[in-house]
Order: sequence, then structure tokens, then C-alpha cells
Amino acid sequence: MSFDQPVDRRSVGATKWDLLASAIGVEAADALPMWVADMDFPPGEFLQRAVTGVRDGGFYGYFSTLPHFQQAVAGWMADRHGWQADPGHVIATHGLGNAIAMCLQTYTAPGDEIAILTPVYHEFAAKVRRNRREVRELPLAIGADRRFALDFERWEGMLSGRERMLVLSSPHNPAGRIWTPDEQRALADFCARHGLLLLCDEIHHDLVFPGERHVPFPVAVPDAMDRTVILGAASKTFNIAGARTGYAIIPDEGLRTRFAACVTALDIQPNRFGVEMTRAAYSPEGAAWVDALVDYLAGNARTFAEGVARIPGLAAMPMQSTYLAWVDFAPLGLSREELQKRVLGNARIGPSPGPPFGTGGELAMRFNLGTRRAHVDEAVARLQRAFADL
Amino acid sequence: MSFDQPVDRRSVGATKWDLLASAIGVEAADALPMWVADMDFPPGEFLQRAVTGVRDGGFYGYFSTLPHFQQAVAGWMADRHGWQADPGHVIATHGLGNAIAMCLQTYTAPGDEIAILTPVYHEFAAKVRRNRREVRELPLAIGADRRFALDFERWEGMLSGRERMLVLSSPHNPAGRIWTPDEQRALADFCARHGLLLLCDEIHHDLVFPGERHVPFPVAVPDAMDRTVILGAASKTFNIAGARTGYAIIPDEGLRTRFAACVTALDIQPNRFGVEMTRAAYSPEGAAWVDALVDYLAGNARTFAEGVARIPGLAAMPMQSTYLAWVDFAPLGLSREELQKRVLGNARIGPSPGPPFGTGGELAMRFNLGTRRAHVDEAVARLQRAFADL
Repeated sequence: MSFDQPVDRRSVGATKWDLLASAIGVEAADALPMWVADMDFPPGEFLQRAVTGVRDGGFYGYFSTLPHFQQAVAGWMADRHGWQADPGHVIATHGLGNAIAMCLQTYTAPGDEIAILTPVYHEFAAKVRRNRREVRELPLAIGADRRFALDFERWEGMLSGRERMLVLSSPHNPAGRIWTPDEQRALADFCARHGLLLLCDEIHHDLVFPGERHVPFPVAVPDAMDRTVILGAASKTFNIAGARTGYAIIPDEGLRTRFAACVTALDIQPNRFGVEMTRAAYSPEGAAWVDALVDYLAGNARTFAEGVARIPGLAAMPMQSTYLAWVDFAPLGLSREELQKRVLGNARIGPSPGPPFGTGGELAMRFNLGTRRAHVDEAVARLQRAFADL
Repeated sequence: MSFDQPVDRRSVGATKWDLLASAIGVEAADALPMWVADMDFPPGEFLQRAVTGVRDGGFYGYFSTLPHFQQAVAGWMADRHGWQADPGHVIATHGLGNAIAMCLQTYTAPGDEIAILTPVYHEFAAKVRRNRREVRELPLAIGADRRFALDFERWEGMLSGRERMLVLSSPHNPAGRIWTPDEQRALADFCARHGLLLLCDEIHHDLVFPGERHVPFPVAVPDAMDRTVILGAASKTFNIAGARTGYAIIPDEGLRTRFAACVTALDIQPNRFGVEMTRAAYSPEGAAWVDALVDYLAGNARTFAEGVARIPGLAAMPMQSTYLAWVDFAPLGLSREELQKRVLGNARIGPSPGPPFGTGGELAMRFNLGTRRAHVDEAVARLQRAFADL
């Protein structure tokens, strides 16, 4: 598990590198891509063995290992997260994004409003709009600890009454804020008060820094399961988004039956590689890999935060999990164009632009720290130089 | 390319073997499964190299090789099928079944009727119903050549006027009937006359026996593209259904835009393995493999037909393509229960039951001949014994 090992992703079809110039606008030969949310680390050996195993089996036809997938997911929840999920409540999906889309289609109707806590993973709003629902932005506050904070008092006055669902990122993307059990209960109460189904995207649940603790929503608020759907995937933790395999866990039978009907109608069945890689990941060997990974990511977050803090007026939001740092450049008083010129042009760094994350992201950028320390050091040094005149 | 090589699929998670007892009801140790439509052949070496290549690349994140997939599909259509498809008209899907479902959702509304030519691939009707549309069965006739035949005169009197789409299997599953260009034009005229979109499932297009010729619908009826969607996949030809990757080819811009919006809303993006295996399959090496395969399958079809013909009163439908033989047992005058007792019990063979294929399948069974010759010989011998008393 050498996360410092140089890895070249310039010739393997990686979106992060191949589309850096066309999508983000950074063309320099020494560009540092920090946008697409995958990590520049070699895969765990257990993943390589899983792929080799499928290949050597020499069979790519219709397969019957889905129950093993459900058991692996439930086992991981029990072992890593203290949640005794029923394997029968696990429904495989074609990645997590597909699961969100199918939840929108199952539980809401065109024209309904969907609440999201911004700034948040840009695909939430995009998926709501592509499915012809409306986005209801509920902006997060910034707490005394400089982290995102829930802001129910404000939100109560912002609802139209046409909201049907709240999509939560837990831990929160960007910046890895972990919602405490008390906060999760307050969110459940808010949803109950306003008749909202809670769609809880816990894809970052494993990427929790040493000393921090994420509590799965069903453990934090077990009595809210009649209005809760949990989404997850091994893809973020183990860097296998290209295998396009995720899952929903739905304890409530009525909610589960409706979702399953949507999944079946669309003929969503996981692919063999995603199933076998997830099974391999959700293992003791996978757990050990994650333990080492989060140590390393926490170090990256420290390095990044310390480096950004040396730029007068700037700070990265303190992180508790994930590899997705968040920097709000608003205090600098510069325009978005000027910020892009400095970060994309001068520093040759390609982060995710903040505006698609919604209100609060206007002058922010998300930096992907899932890369070797040397890259984070270099990014920090370049940012310092790009803003040295201020 | 040794299709005679014994392959053991009892411990690789193959549905065909693992679910034979529970789904079909054949429990014998020497059972011959002839239901699920994949083949008991080793994968082509080009597929093994593709999987190895993805593994050795060590990258499973977000990928950018979709344009290569589109080019590979278009290249295959040009080289193998004489159809100059535009790569930009190719939209990747999560397998062909998923493509059918998304077409139903895109182009029709709940309660609409969908016409199918029965007996036909059982999933057509199942998908129509799961998407809360209604099935309009248009039964195929049996021609003087003992093959399925179009029967427009009868069908004209069977329509309700609420039909919106016709789903065609071309070549036809079961029995591999190839629709001639004239027949395809007549079908296009029928669809135009009744305001039907034609959804043309050409997944079996490659499995054409020596001496036969399948003409893609857009080549046969180029002026019907304003109401035609073509579906395909490498999965049937190359035995990679578990990779869950297919495609729609939609020349009409309006139809394509609507379908693409559905695909995007559902976040259907192909998985990396399916993409790379399809690219590897759609190659000169893949083409050579298919040439050898169809020779072998044609031999299997001959063996099966000759063997079944020795049972008084019985005949397998003459095949032009595919490995999916069709035997209508109606001439024997036996009940379905009696047939099952003889085929599943006495002969220990597990074919696909005919009734889900719709009208015309009541007393029929579909036999999967995608297996080594020795198995076909054995199946024929067992069938002869099971009906020897008649």
C-alpha cells in the first residue's frame, strides 16, 4: 500500500487527465488535475485478484452471484459501520448516480421539488433537473468551527410546500463534514415535519479520518426508516467508479417494493466485474487497505490546509473525511474570472469549479486530494505563488 | 477456437447451471441445461486480452473511452453488415434489455399498447408489462417452408388503434428466422400505416449461418429511419451478457435526442469492462472467431434438426441463424405437463418453456444449442428415448 508510488494516468483512458483541457481548460504539460473524484493510486491487490479471477473463470454470461453481493454489502455495514443491515434489503444499481435517478423517478413526479443542502455534489441538482424535477436549495451555514452547519431556522422559511424529497450527502461532499447522530435526527425531524423522503447518499462513509466517526443514518435514527433510503457503493472508497456498480439499502418494505419495481422495469442488473470487485473490496483485506488509505488522505488534508492557510485571507474548510477539499475564495474579493486565471492559468491546477455545487459555491473550488503527497505539496506551492502578490 | 473443448460451468456462477433446478426444475446430476441464452464455449482470446489490459492498466475510475466504443460499433456495422452507421448515432446502454426498457419509457406512455410478433423472446412482453404498457400479440404464421411468416392480413384485424410501437426481433428469437429486405419493407409499411415506432432488436445479427444473409433494417429500408430505433450488443455474439453493455443506434435526430435525454436522466453510462470487451470483440480477430462460431452452430442446428426429425410427428423449426432452436410439440397431442415430464424428467434436459414466448408457444420449448456437439448429440438421443413409446 504505497500511496506515494508515482502512477501515470495519461494513457489509460482516465477522464481526469484526458478531458482536463477540454472540460476544465487547463492545457499545461505539467497540469495537476484535481477535479474528477477518483484517486491517483494503484488498485488494491484484492481488486486485481478479483478481475483475474473473473477472467480465469472464462465465463462472462448470465450470472447468479447477486446474493453474494448483497451479503458482502450487509457484512461490510455490520463490520465497518455497526449497522445490521438485512442482505435482502440491498438492491444493486448501475452505480450510485443511477440509484439517485431511479429514486427520483420512483418517489417523486415531474415538477416536484427536491431539497438539497448547498454547496453540495453538483450531480444532485443536475440529476433533479434532468429528471424534470425542481431544485430547492437550502444553503448550509458556516459554523464557528468553519465547517458547514445545518440551518433549520432559515430553511423553514425557504420551503414552497412542493418539496417531496431531501437528498443528503453524508458525509458531505465537498469537504467531508460528518453529520452527528443529533444532526441526523434533526434532519429526520425536518423531513418528517415537511413530508419529505430522505435520500441519504453515504458513498463517502468509509473515507473517515482517524479520530472521526460516521454513524450510518439507520443507526442514528432507526425510527425514521419509513421515509429513508440509503445509497452506497464501493466505488468511491476503492476507486472503481468505472465498474458502475452501487446499491440502495431500503429497510421499509413499501419503499423497497416500489424501488425494486423501477429497477426491474429498467432491467438494471449489475455487471459481473462490479459485483466481484465489490465482493473483493468488502473483505478484511479491503478493510486494511481503507485503514491505510484514510491515514494517508488525512495527511493530504493537513498538508493542503496548512499550505492554503499561508495565503493571506484564504483557508481550506477543515475536513473530517473524503479527499474533496473545499476552498471559498470569496474573502479575496476577486472575480471568478480572475480566480480561474490564477488557479487554472498561473498554477496549472484543474479543480472542480464551485458554481455547479449551488449557492455558496459562487467563488469556491473543490480540490481533489486523492493523489500522492508530492502532488499536494506541488499544488500548494503553486497556489501560494499564484496569490503571492495579494 | 475449439468449440468441442469441454467447459465446466458448474462453479463459475453461471445462471444456466446454478438455477437450473430452482427455475426450470431439472435436478439430475447429468442434467443438460438448454435454457439461458449464453454459450458453453471458452471466450475468445481477444476478450481475455481486453480484460487483462484493463487490469494491467490498474485504473478503474471515471473513463473517457466512450468515443472509441461508438467507433468500434460503427466500424463493425460497416465491415460485417454493410451499414455505414454514424458513430455519433450510437448510444451506449446498460445491456440490450435496458435499452428496450428505456425505449418504452421514452417513446410510449403507460397504458399504450406495444405490438410483438409471437412467439418471440419472452422478455419483450415482460418488459412491456413491467413498464405498465400493454402487450398486443400479433401471432406469426408458419410458412410452407415450416418457418415463421409475417401475417399482415390477419394482423390488420387485430389492432386496437392504441398501439404505439412494434418490437421486432431480427433475426428472430426463437429459431433464427431472417427477415428479408422485402419483409422488412413490408413491416416498415405496416408500422407507417398504423403510426408505430419500430424498435428493431438486432442482437442476433452476427449469428447468421453460412449461406444465409441478414440485412440490417437501415440498409433494407433506409427511408424509414424517422420511425426506427436499432438495438444491438456484442453480448450475444461474443457471450458477454454479464458485462451488461449494449447500444442503440438512432439515425433520426429527434428520436435520438429524446432517447439520449432518458439515458442521461437515468445516468446510464457503460462500465469499463463492457466497453473494452466490446471494442476487442469488434475487431478482425473477433470477426474470425464469429466465422468459426457460426460454422459450428450451423452444424449443431443440423444435428439437432436431424435428431428431432426421427421422433415421429416432431420437427425442429428450420434455422437460419442463432443457437436458439424451437420445437413445437403440439402435433404429439400431449399435455404441457406430460411434455415436461418427458423432457425435464425423463430426458433431464432444461429448455426454456414456450408459454412466456406468447401465442404459438403453448406447447413449445426453446432449446439452446450454444454448447459442444457432444451435448447436442446427447440431448437428441435423450429426446428420442423420452418419446420412443409414441
